Amino acid sequence: MNGAESLVHTLVANSIDVCFANPGTSEMHFVAALDRIPGIRCIPGMQENVVTGMADGYHRIARTPAATLLHCGPGLANGLANLHNARRAHSGIVNIVGDQATYHSQYDPPLAADTAALARTVSSWVRTSMSAQSVGRDASVAIQAAKTSPGQIATLILPADTAWTEGGITGAALSTPSPEHVDQHTIIEVAKTLRNARNVLLLLGGPALRAEAQVHVARIQAKTGCRIMTELFNGLHQRGRGRLPLSRVPFAPASAIAALADVEHLILVGAKAPVGFFAYPGVPSKHYPETAQVQLLARLEQDAEAALRALADELGCTPSVAIPGGERPAAPTGLPTSLGFGQMLAAVMPEDAIIVDEGISFAHAFYDASHNAPPHDWMNVTGGAIGYGLPTATGAAVAGKGRRVICPQADGSGMYTLQALWTQARENLPVTTVILANRKYQILLGEYANVGANPGQTAMDMLDLGRPDLDWVKLANGMGVEAAKATTLEECAELMRGSFKRDGPFLVELVI
Amino acid sequence: MNGAESLVHTLVANSIDVCFANPGTSEMHFVAALDRIPGIRCIPGMQENVVTGMADGYHRIARTPAATLLHCGPGLANGLANLHNARRAHSGIVNIVGDQATYHSQYDPPLAADTAALARTVSSWVRTSMSAQSVGRDASVAIQAAKTSPGQIATLILPADTAWTEGGITGAALSTPSPEHVDQHTIIEVAKTLRNARNVLLLLGGPALRAEAQVHVARIQAKTGCRIMTELFNGLHQRGRGRLPLSRVPFAPASAIAALADVEHLILVGAKAPVGFFAYPGVPSKHYPETAQVQLLARLEQDAEAALRALADELGCTPSVAIPGGERPAAPTGLPTSLGFGQMLAAVMPEDAIIVDEGISFAHAFYDASHNAPPHDWMNVTGGAIGYGLPTATGAAVAGKGRRVICPQADGSGMYTLQALWTQARENLPVTTVILANRKYQILLGEYANVGANPGQTAMDMLDLGRPDLDWVKLANGMGVEAAKATTLEECAELMRGSFKRDGPFLVELVI
Repeated sequence: MNGAESLVHTLVANSIDVCFANPGTSEMHFVAALDRIPGIRCIPGMQENVVTGMADGYHRIARTPAATLLHCGPGLANGLANLHNARRAHSGIVNIVGDQATYHSQYDPPLAADTAALARTVSSWVRTSMSAQSVGRDASVAIQAAKTSPGQIATLILPADTAWTEGGITGAALSTPSPEHVDQHTIIEVAKTLRNARNVLLLLGGPALRAEAQVHVARIQAKTGCRIMTELFNGLHQRGRGRLPLSRVPFAPASAIAALADVEHLILVGAKAPVGFFAYPGVPSKHYPETAQVQLLARLEQDAEAALRALADELGCTPSVAIPGGERPAAPTGLPTSLGFGQMLAAVMPEDAIIVDEGISFAHAFYDASHNAPPHDWMNVTGGAIGYGLPTATGAAVAGKGRRVICPQADGSGMYTLQALWTQARENLPVTTVILANRKYQILLGEYANVGANPGQTAMDMLDLGRPDLDWVKLANGMGVEAAKATTLEECAELMRGSFKRDGPFLVELVI
Repeated sequence: MNGAESLVHTLVANSIDVCFANPGTSEMHFVAALDRIPGIRCIPGMQENVVTGMADGYHRIARTPAATLLHCGPGLANGLANLHNARRAHSGIVNIVGDQATYHSQYDPPLAADTAALARTVSSWVRTSMSAQSVGRDASVAIQAAKTSPGQIATLILPADTAWTEGGITGAALSTPSPEHVDQHTIIEVAKTLRNARNVLLLLGGPALRAEAQVHVARIQAKTGCRIMTELFNGLHQRGRGRLPLSRVPFAPASAIAALADVEHLILVGAKAPVGFFAYPGVPSKHYPETAQVQLLARLEQDAEAALRALADELGCTPSVAIPGGERPAAPTGLPTSLGFGQMLAAVMPEDAIIVDEGISFAHAFYDASHNAPPHDWMNVTGGAIGYGLPTATGAAVAGKGRRVICPQADGSGMYTLQALWTQARENLPVTTVILANRKYQILLGEYANVGANPGQTAMDMLDLGRPDLDWVKLANGMGVEAAKATTLEECAELMRGSFKRDGPFLVELVI
């Protein structure tokens, strides 16, 4: 057994059964081992940021890591932006990155690069195996790291000679460490605040947004009347009928500061205290009042559901509370607006859909307008690195095993990783993409306005995406995805409904 | 004057007049400054690897750096692969990368990343300005670093508050350091070898491949009868009628080792001693004989032309030697082969064309078949990071000021950065792209065969690019570039000739 074969046996022994891949020469022995040893489904992406984005989307839905197979240095570099998003979504991923043979890198061949330095910028765990004998053991530890709550990015760098050399040993099936429990002292202290203080905000993030955790949030809210919000961008929020209709902390600093102005006690559950996405002149970095008392109920890696249950019990809440659902909106008609699109989404989406939202500037009203949809999962671009939507939707569809994925995708961001459409076609995945085509970097035109001036020719040269307009129907068709254009909400709704009857992907270009 | 304005004034004062850009929020004050202060042409790319590849192509032709404007962390990460290629091409580039405000990064907002660590993996010079006052001075030094022979990558990281704060000071116009001269002792020693030794190979790279340097190589060869070759992948090789018909060191290890087997003396002129692109089991890393004596005439950063002139004079060569040109080939017909495509290229290309070769596996015979073309410049994927062709061709066309750029582009690699086609359309650049559509990662199938087996289903899942086939005519049209399909060399030649009559871009999908 060579090192490459020991890797594949170790992946299988540790229940990794999907590998998103764009290999190169230094990974060819791993490709051969994956070919010889059954048990892993390999899914190609035509650029590495598609590959890593798919792995992110997979973990958000499957709650267990996939592997990626990436080419040395520059290949990994191409996938870093979506690994950055995955890190901010707390997704577990096992990156397998080939590299120059241990004895060859001293000659600085053309593709030589500092692969480990690149990996460290996005990974919680990085190791380079130095012999075939250590590949299996290192892979076991990498997988364990990736599975550590709430999910981590682990990158295992494998020089080519560790793959082809005999002497590989299958790594052990290691147990997944359980999330740490919150101590009772913390529960009691937070309960005191909720009992005695005014203007308490419970801010939810990460695992606190799962349906099973929301049950206890509802109990706490019913008992104490505290406010509840979620972080701005969440890896996965379970929403719709039967789940809490939660608001997110706004993106715009003035709105966020206004929304949080009354907060006297901020209790964090898998969330961070809200700060600006960017700094702006004269605007404070912290968006909550300096005078607010911040308490931590559960860190991200802790068991938020257990902590919320214990808190609800400590507060003497009733064992269960019905979450009242509003009425599902009717599908609106007319020219697209953000509010109308959100209502339309709620009106048309099937049960148990997965919404991958990279709507950017057009998305401001999607979220609040879709509370009363059927139960669904909602994802955001957690790290702010654009180009997450199409790949993450693709990976989510792989994990979703037939669940419909709907991806409202801004055009400028979508162009970053449009290659994902080809993988959707190739794997016949149930993804409905709606390109929100405004033909500008609209959010940047908004940011430009904040700087103070009307954009001149040079600014528009950088921020306008017209001249020529993109034709997303042709782009999708060019990668084997059927597509159509819509200019009204009713056209869009009809095309979306039609797409839900298909097995595979479909794209709507909605001109907004 | 704020820091952003001081940056733009400093760029203009130091003769930087092109900026390839994909800015984000943290760069908005720079966009505003570029808008207010004339003198810099801003060209957008729809993904950062397009932006950095354009800057690489620009330098290869203009021989002076352009700037890039990139978004913090993940934006830079997206552009690293083509910066890796640019580094290996010895291209000078001034990267301007925005970042979180100095006082804001402590809060670890979603887009925060280790921008400097990312920059260091590809840059010869990295600095983060910490105040508006230092931006101008730092930019002057960055530009000087980028212009240092033979060209370097300089990355200046500018936290957002250094842009918007008043107190900016325009940096000085710094002189460009001249390339170091080779000392006379080295010239004399190399001359001795050429006079007295047998089986001498003069290996040329970097600046030694410019036409003005080749004049002296021809003199030396005529006098001494030494062999001459070039490195495998060159940033820019000036070729065609009136230039030396040079062979490259082959890619395949067995071919390279055979080609170099007789070498007893290896004289390097702006080149590195040949090693494997990758290591393979049982194949030596060095592709030249262990017994060969290696002598260095000129390091990359030294003045290769002056060194070759001095060497020719030392050897008593005649002042000039006519380089005999072969006959320009007729355009072949029939189904595409690599040899036929190379002949066709030589037959149809206009005078002074720029060839950006990312033909990968299909390109093996292009080069030798096109020696007898009209004078032209030829570029390779110097760092082996695929996806260099379309962006580099785009930047080369900006620098070429009307020269026709021809980009033979493998389909799998082309998909990495297809967004460059949109910039070609937007800027109406004279680029003729020929997509070599084999619908596979053919080079990897070759590498897979070296591993020993026929690819099974899992390997083909990762290496085959069919199911569905890409339609490059639709992809190009979707980005505003006219395009047509060809299946024979004569169809391809006719479409190419037609494209040369246009002002702007055209794409041919050649099914191979």
